[in-house]
Amino acid sequence: MNEIDVEENVRGRVVPADSIPQIAERLAHEAAADIADYLDGLEPEEAAAILAALPPERAVEALDQSSLEAGPEIVAALPEETAVSLLEGMSADRVAGIFRELGEPEHSRLLDRLDAGTRASLKTLLAYPEESAGSIMTTEFVSVPGNWTIAETLHHIRMVERTRETVYSVFVTDPVRHTLVHAVSLRRLVSGDPHANVLSAAPKRRVIKIAALAPREEVVRLISKYRLLAVPVVDVRNHVIGIVTVDDVIDAMVESQTEQVQRFGGMEALDEPYMDIGFWAMIRKRAGWLSVLLLGEMLTASAMQGFEGELSKAIVLTLFIPLIMSSGGNSGSQATSLIIRALALHEVRLRDWWRVALRELPSGIALGSILGLIGIVRISAWQTLGLYDYGEHWHLVAATVGAALVCVVTFGSLAGSLLPFVLKRGGFDPAVASAPFVATLVDVSGLVIYFSVALVILHGTLL
Amino acid sequence: MNEIDVEENVRGRVVPADSIPQIAERLAHEAAADIADYLDGLEPEEAAAILAALPPERAVEALDQSSLEAGPEIVAALPEETAVSLLEGMSADRVAGIFRELGEPEHSRLLDRLDAGTRASLKTLLAYPEESAGSIMTTEFVSVPGNWTIAETLHHIRMVERTRETVYSVFVTDPVRHTLVHAVSLRRLVSGDPHANVLSAAPKRRVIKIAALAPREEVVRLISKYRLLAVPVVDVRNHVIGIVTVDDVIDAMVESQTEQVQRFGGMEALDEPYMDIGFWAMIRKRAGWLSVLLLGEMLTASAMQGFEGELSKAIVLTLFIPLIMSSGGNSGSQATSLIIRALALHEVRLRDWWRVALRELPSGIALGSILGLIGIVRISAWQTLGLYDYGEHWHLVAATVGAALVCVVTFGSLAGSLLPFVLKRGGFDPAVASAPFVATLVDVSGLVIYFSVALVILHGTLL
Repeated sequence: MNEIDVEENVRGRVVPADSIPQIAERLAHEAAADIADYLDGLEPEEAAAILAALPPERAVEALDQSSLEAGPEIVAALPEETAVSLLEGMSADRVAGIFRELGEPEHSRLLDRLDAGTRASLKTLLAYPEESAGSIMTTEFVSVPGNWTIAETLHHIRMVERTRETVYSVFVTDPVRHTLVHAVSLRRLVSGDPHANVLSAAPKRRVIKIAALAPREEVVRLISKYRLLAVPVVDVRNHVIGIVTVDDVIDAMVESQTEQVQRFGGMEALDEPYMDIGFWAMIRKRAGWLSVLLLGEMLTASAMQGFEGELSKAIVLTLFIPLIMSSGGNSGSQATSLIIRALALHEVRLRDWWRVALRELPSGIALGSILGLIGIVRISAWQTLGLYDYGEHWHLVAATVGAALVCVVTFGSLAGSLLPFVLKRGGFDPAVASAPFVATLVDVSGLVIYFSVALVILHGTLL
Repeated sequence: MNEIDVEENVRGRVVPADSIPQIAERLAHEAAADIADYLDGLEPEEAAAILAALPPERAVEALDQSSLEAGPEIVAALPEETAVSLLEGMSADRVAGIFRELGEPEHSRLLDRLDAGTRASLKTLLAYPEESAGSIMTTEFVSVPGNWTIAETLHHIRMVERTRETVYSVFVTDPVRHTLVHAVSLRRLVSGDPHANVLSAAPKRRVIKIAALAPREEVVRLISKYRLLAVPVVDVRNHVIGIVTVDDVIDAMVESQTEQVQRFGGMEALDEPYMDIGFWAMIRKRAGWLSVLLLGEMLTASAMQGFEGELSKAIVLTLFIPLIMSSGGNSGSQATSLIIRALALHEVRLRDWWRVALRELPSGIALGSILGLIGIVRISAWQTLGLYDYGEHWHLVAATVGAALVCVVTFGSLAGSLLPFVLKRGGFDPAVASAPFVATLVDVSGLVIYFSVALVILHGTLL
């Protein structure tokens, strides 16, 4: 048998049935993430056969990988007995992730066979709305009452270590009311005085926690800002009901980065790898925004119909329509991308919109002047070198293009930078302001600005 | 004195000198990240005064925050004595980060006064090229020889815990050759048999490590794929020379996300918060791409000059130029954003370009047909409802617009999806293919396609 290339990930490889034990044996020594990658490349039935042939603890680890795309399909293809025992060994957040996508009849059938503890924590997790802290938390954490010593805490950690997602953050609760008092780190417990109270190992600042219904982005922000390995999720009574760990946050960041790039590219987020998503599902995600943008862009046709008279008198003006429109769109999409990120990173707040406007106004004028100058030089050069004849009033045409570029770029920068504020103020995610969206918005106004500038400059000559 | 709003971050607040001890006392109980945020809002001299008034270990923690933008300025404003003692307490990677931005004469003056150990590790870190694993690693890690027991290892951890970036990953080296043998986690050490060899706590898979000169993205990929808290950085002899921890990876991800959005918006990455960057620095970052795009867009003027005859015969065609061009650009920027992310996530490889082309060709035709249909309906409706008169051959005009939309959108999807491959193949970062870049590329071809379709359909009638 050849070496298995575990980093390879192409769907639809075929594995001969008699080589499954050998493959399982080799995979058993690979990292869980690599096993998951390999399984993702197989048909669910084959992946299930290999999973069943792995040592159970390695199979659980592989299923526990959030990178495993085909988890629900593989679980559905497993013998029920095996599926139940693997699910019971997995971390609660991953089990919830699999059950969210698991179809019927497997969903109810497997749910009924899980042990009471797993079923209860699963039901809790599934009850939280998607994108909330509660929906991405896991219930396997360590908490100890505040009257324990460090030695007692360490002893407890040794007992439960194997079944916990992390033991590096330990949550200390009020011995009577069971509310969250503080978080201590394993490193401070290990180096602390064994006979001292567990709280002696706690840092001298308030504990950082998150409400179960808080949005997922807030978890990401807390963990990355305060450099936590895990953040406790609390209910309204301040009882710890779960934790979100740093690796969940990394997953969430990778996912949100993909979403953001796809949405800024002018489409709905795919939510699936490009090569895996079905043809019509992809068309649906892309056609919506394209159609909306087309309808918006139709206003340019209406605007040009309004300038029909000017157009027929000065056809030379049409030559520069694409150039002027796209410059407005480009400066707008620059400004929008800047402000979307600045808002996401809390560098600017909603109330700072006027500061941004005061920066973008001079920026737009400066950028527009640079582009306007280039435009004038281009027209003058072509005319002087005899490459094209823009007519006897060519210097007025050049002036029109230059002045229009200044105005359109200034307008684009201002509109592009303020659009995310308007969206956020209106309760929308500012990230829906994609580059094509801004470009379309600026296109129509760009045309009107161009023809208005032309009317002023060319009045009495061409128009 | 009022409550300090530590989450507030506005530059240039003024702090009365006599309130500094009080502010320091309050800040001392806040999280280090919040102290850093607060200091970032002050003038460097004020921030330095407050830092000097904080308990030294809190001051070190605050300076250790990678979110502290003004670190170098604050260090420069500190009394030399204080600066040196704080720098010696900080983690080596942050000290290196500060020295990279510290101007002269502070750079050499402080460097000379650091103790030999700090200076040596600082010089090592500063020698690695930016964006390499070596440049973001830190040198404060725990490693033990492979012939130690778990008890000896835990004892060593207790001794050095305070001075290490993390003690959760412990690196086991060959007792003779000092090469990296394996990594063990503190959780397994704590729950392991104290008398057993340290390697008994190691997982049964190969150790994951990274070469010092590997790119930063590779560290991000390893840590997020294998869910590590730290990855060891090794030199050519396989000696551990440092570690990169998960919080560095989160910083790198936030930074790269900002860069990616800004670049996809059609500009150079700012590398500084929007509100902090100087006016002319920002203009420079934005004007470059805008000018390049304008020069590219000038080809549209040239293309239209080539169709001057057709334009003057059928002015009605000009009405739909913006609409057709922008649809091509929009479908192109969708496709590009999809492929940039798929390449970044290793969902598709360079050699998969033809698979992508085989997906985008039918997608483009389907999307183009949808848009074409909308276009035809729009023109027919306006004509039939008497909103505008497109002339006696209006149905041919509608057919031209419809057919042109199919062709332009198909071309846009194909070109937009293949552009990142071409860039990657040519040794460029595929992410330089911004939405405006793709739109400009598709605009010129879109015009040519539109007029060619018009020539075919309108030949003998309008043209």
